[in-house]
Amino acid sequence: MKIVIVGATGTIGKAVVAALYPRHEILAVGNRGGAFQVDIADAQSIRALFQKTGRFDALVAAVGKVHFGEFAKMTEKEFDIGIRNKLMGQVNLVLKGRAYVNDGGSFTLTSGSLDRYPVRGGSNAATINAALGGFVRAAALDLDRGIRINLVSPALLEESTAKFAPLLPGHEAVSSARVGLAYVKSVEGGQTGQVYEIG
Amino acid sequence: MKIVIVGATGTIGKAVVAALYPRHEILAVGNRGGAFQVDIADAQSIRALFQKTGRFDALVAAVGKVHFGEFAKMTEKEFDIGIRNKLMGQVNLVLKGRAYVNDGGSFTLTSGSLDRYPVRGGSNAATINAALGGFVRAAALDLDRGIRINLVSPALLEESTAKFAPLLPGHEAVSSARVGLAYVKSVEGGQTGQVYEIG
Repeated sequence: MKIVIVGATGTIGKAVVAALYPRHEILAVGNRGGAFQVDIADAQSIRALFQKTGRFDALVAAVGKVHFGEFAKMTEKEFDIGIRNKLMGQVNLVLKGRAYVNDGGSFTLTSGSLDRYPVRGGSNAATINAALGGFVRAAALDLDRGIRINLVSPALLEESTAKFAPLLPGHEAVSSARVGLAYVKSVEGGQTGQVYEIG
Repeated sequence: MKIVIVGATGTIGKAVVAALYPRHEILAVGNRGGAFQVDIADAQSIRALFQKTGRFDALVAAVGKVHFGEFAKMTEKEFDIGIRNKLMGQVNLVLKGRAYVNDGGSFTLTSGSLDRYPVRGGSNAATINAALGGFVRAAALDLDRGIRINLVSPALLEESTAKFAPLLPGHEAVSSARVGLAYVKSVEGGQTGQVYEIG
């Protein structure tokens, strides 16, 4: 398969590439790195990306910023970071990518565990993660031509514990190998409308 | 208690008013009707509302538009209707309302059942409903002064079956009395960070 991996240079993206590259043609997309670049918060940039990649069999999005911080001090503008970037960025990859995905192809998006295990300061992340779950479960019913859509919801990756563990008390880290398998399950398996919770 | 009910003139809002007015002072807020008016998609309008209501003990939001339609034809602009209105409208009622809610007060928001029972055409609704669940579960951890926040997620109301039942095949309608009780549970009970699924 020809697989577009958006966020290929990030921690999760690297796990996705490692799990998929032995059997597939990978188009690595980064913000600055990778073979192609995109700003997912910019619909024009997404359109330009697909004009370069052309048609594909699968798209994986492992990408998206949220605002982390105390809710009592959060502004609407800060809350909007997650909406514009991690939520609408991934939704727009599907909205714009529909015209480029081959029959029987798939979209695999990425959320995270902060909706099922919320932490202080994580209200923006929890909102966006939960939203992506609702989106995938419902959009799956509307996609035609055998196109599938799933969501991977990984816990903290072992590689990221040094950076994020203090914000996520008691959260158990998962290996990038386990997380990578969830993307293989989505891309190579037959399910649609699923949320794969890893950790 | 002094309770601000945003969306008091709608089908769910009327059920909320009926359940709460015998024991409380109700400030009914509508889009055009009610004692006060607000456009929840407009942050300035929300700010102006709270300047008029002053401090309160509880706020109930039973309000918010989403776009209903086939995902294959949905545009980013249509998807944004639910984001701006039902999601960010209710989030902004909390963000701006924090400064007006009394110690030990509460916020009660409203989603709907389309995230747990998705239907064709309902991807925008499912996304927003799920997002509100994530928001409430996480924001509850950050609110101080004993302030609580819960979400009511009602199925189709009996009063709305004529209008919406064709879009929601097999969905069981619930009585407005049952839905009203969930808001009483949130406002008068002690729980926080809960999603009350009704039907």
